[in-house]
Formats: sequence, structure tokens, C-alpha cells
Amino acid sequence: MLEIGGETLVLTHDMMVEGVHFLAGQDPADVAYKLVATNISDLAAKGAEPIGVLLGYQLGTGDARFLEGLREALAEYGAALLGGDTVSGDGRQALGLTAIGRATHRPVPSRSGARAGDRVWLTGRVGGAMVGLEALRAGSGDTLAYRRPRARLAQGIALAPQVSAMMDVSDGLLLDAARMARASGACLSLESGAVPLACPESRRAEALRWGDDYELLFTLPAQIVPEVAATCIGEVFSAPAGTLLIDGKAPDSADILGYEHR
Amino acid sequence: MLEIGGETLVLTHDMMVEGVHFLAGQDPADVAYKLVATNISDLAAKGAEPIGVLLGYQLGTGDARFLEGLREALAEYGAALLGGDTVSGDGRQALGLTAIGRATHRPVPSRSGARAGDRVWLTGRVGGAMVGLEALRAGSGDTLAYRRPRARLAQGIALAPQVSAMMDVSDGLLLDAARMARASGACLSLESGAVPLACPESRRAEALRWGDDYELLFTLPAQIVPEVAATCIGEVFSAPAGTLLIDGKAPDSADILGYEHR
Repeated sequence: MLEIGGETLVLTHDMMVEGVHFLAGQDPADVAYKLVATNISDLAAKGAEPIGVLLGYQLGTGDARFLEGLREALAEYGAALLGGDTVSGDGRQALGLTAIGRATHRPVPSRSGARAGDRVWLTGRVGGAMVGLEALRAGSGDTLAYRRPRARLAQGIALAPQVSAMMDVSDGLLLDAARMARASGACLSLESGAVPLACPESRRAEALRWGDDYELLFTLPAQIVPEVAATCIGEVFSAPAGTLLIDGKAPDSADILGYEHR
Repeated sequence: MLEIGGETLVLTHDMMVEGVHFLAGQDPADVAYKLVATNISDLAAKGAEPIGVLLGYQLGTGDARFLEGLREALAEYGAALLGGDTVSGDGRQALGLTAIGRATHRPVPSRSGARAGDRVWLTGRVGGAMVGLEALRAGSGDTLAYRRPRARLAQGIALAPQVSAMMDVSDGLLLDAARMARASGACLSLESGAVPLACPESRRAEALRWGDDYELLFTLPAQIVPEVAATCIGEVFSAPAGTLLIDGKAPDSADILGYEHR
């Protein structure tokens, strides 16, 4: 974040690499859309309204389609293309996007503000990107949630004045909740059965650990009702500080809670 | 550029890909330094003082060395690391950097302001990166100009209130001068023999077409003397509008004036 002339700017940068963050052969328009949405999601979690983006683009085989998806996403989120760089290079395509937004509420929400007595909330559902990716690989089924995740921009802006803590769920609900607990020095206690799913019930455990859904995870004082549609999925205790509880238990140390960036 | 609360922010993004912008096996500290310097050079050309950067980093084999070079460059140019993203991914390493600066003078210099009667100036010398790259490939000789180009930050800030047009020379002096001529709708007439070289005289024609030296190319009204050390290398005429003349002649259409981004 940057304080500039009385404004608070929020800056985010996300990178996507072919074969890691998107499939080789995927529609470049979808790749562009997702690259924008993941960055805008970071702004949403800060309650920031987008100003514009800078793109780092390694030329590939579907540049025109990429541009189409880029324009569509920028229009949807009200962001301008402010600049960037285009490079050649064979091998796996790498893309980077920087998004700049303006905070609509100060203090800007962070992941460190969860306090004992708060409730834990989630917009939307998880598991959609997981089954969407499987459908894309299988060549049948609904792929939209994986290809075109929606950044919860309006929700983030509406929630910013209410929340004690907020972040977007990009690496898995449990992993990101554990990060919020650690950052807040509090205990986030989640009720796994309360989490709404966009996949079959049998996949619940996986869906809670899968990323890419870009919903907002936030905490509110107990008496506050969120301004937007959301589900209460747990509560915050003071101890054990910095930890996550799932249905009252600490996860096993071997439990992989989400996608760890290497 | 962004107008925010009475300030003018200058934003730049440059990407570097292994095998295209740096050699496989090059010291990652040098790669980091150059990634920062090329972005800061863009700020310098706008007379902007750096605020900070966001890094998109694909993990490689020399991450600790990369961090060393990054810290060194950021300290040298007074920029903070504001954020970024780290990704895995094999194959050619791709890196992106966004730099944010604050304009020190308004209007912010651009490449479109050259006017008939102006003189054309250049800081420093060209050809150093060319022979530096050759030395690095050969394993002997002075490689510094290629590995650690200096962004002309102090010069750009000192020149910003004086210049009618300014840009940094990243893709070759002649190509970038042609771009300034086109953007300004004027004729830039360069005297090739006046351009200071950082390489043998026999390489003059190549040095004028080689990039990566990051000197500042600028125009000043005829009676103005630049605030910083620089060499007058030509003058601006009104016609033929939008063209470059080299020693009084238009370059042959087959003449490659610099490095064209593909």
C-alpha cells in the first residue's frame, strides 16, 4: 500500500506460468480473464476500487484471443490498461499483471485484524474451480468456475467498513484461514460442514483445501450482519493463538491445507 | 501515468526472459540488478523519483543471489519492495518488475515534445553493453556495462524541467531517436560521428543500433545548456515530419536501427 497525496493506493502483482497456473492449450482469452480476476480479487480483499493494470506479456500462439479476454475482464472490473511490456521467448509462457486500486475505506482491511468473539464468514462457495479444472481436463462438464473466476469486487468494497479482517481465498480455504489466524494472533475455529460447496458433498475435504475460487474470507464482530450474501463458517477465539481449528481440532501436521507456493 | 490526489505517479513494467534478455547461467544478482535498473531508467526518462517496485519472480536456481542483487539495486535507487508474487515453473525463467515513481516536474517529459530548432542531446556513451555482452560470452573483458547498466536517475530528474522531449535509450539510439521523431512529428537529424562511444571506433555503426545502454536521449531549445553532462548529437527540423536523418540522409528501409520487440 502507498499513501499518496491523501489517497491510499493498493498495489498487487500476480504471475501465471503455463503448466502451473493454466493448462497448455487453454483458451488464451480465459487465461487473460483469470490473470485480471486474480489481481482484482486482491484489490477486492482490501476494499479497493481498481484504477488500472500493467501487463507483462510473453508472446504466445494466441495473442489476439488473449487481448480479447483482457479487454473483457478490464471492462468488467472497470480497470484501464496503463502500460506494460511485451517480450518474446519460447518455452512455457509466463505472464504477470500489476493492478493498482484506490482504497475506498480506511483503515484498509487486512488479514491481521481477527479478534476473539468475532465470527468467520465466507462469500460464495468453494470447490467450483476444482471440479471446473477436472472438467476442463476431461473435456466435458462445467468449466466456468476454473476458467473465469469472479473477483468479489463489489462485495469487498461493501464489506471493507464492516470487517475486522479480510482476505481472498486463493490457495485453499483452510490454508488461507490458517494464515489469517497466524497474522491475527488468534484462533480461527471453522465448522467444516458449514462451508457451502460448489461440488459434490463427497469432495468436501478436498474442496476446503483447493484454491482458485477467489471468495472472500472475513471476520465480523458477533453482532454484525454482513452487508453482502455470505455464510458464517466459524468463530474466533483468543487461544491457542495463531492457530486454526477444524471442527474443534487442530489439523494433523501432515494435513495439506492448501496450495503452498514454492 | 496516474493523477492521484495532486500527485502524478509514473508506472512502468519491464519483463525479462532467460535466453532473451539475459544469458542462461548469468549471475542472478546481475539479472536482478538489471531488471531494477531498466525499470528505474523508464522513471528517469520521466523525471520521476522512485517509490517502490513489485516483483514477479519465477523461482530458479540462484534465488539467494537474485535477492542480493535486488536489495543492492533497490538501495542504490531508493526504491522499496512493495510486494509481488513468486511462482514455480521449470523451463526458461521469466521475471517481471513494476516500478512506481512520483513525478518531480510537470508536465512530465515525454518523447513527443521535440520541436524544430531544438538540439538533440545524449547522456553518456553507447556501445558499452554491446562489448560487455561479447566479453561475457567470451569469458574475458569488461562486462560491467552489460551486467549492471546504470539508470540515469539523477540526470533525468535534473533535466526534466529543461527538456522539450526525453526518453531512455533501451532498444538502440537510432531506433529510439526515430521513435522520438515520429512521436513528435518532427525531423531528428543526427550527426553519427558526434555520438560518444564506449567501444572501438570501428564498431560505431553497430553501437548506434545496439540497445541496453539506458542513456537518456533528450531535446532542448537551441540556447539552453543541459544541467548535466551530455553531448549534442544533432538538431531538430520541422520536415520531413516524423523522420530520422543520419548525417543528413534518411536511413535505407532495410537498415535495422535497433532491437525491435517482437
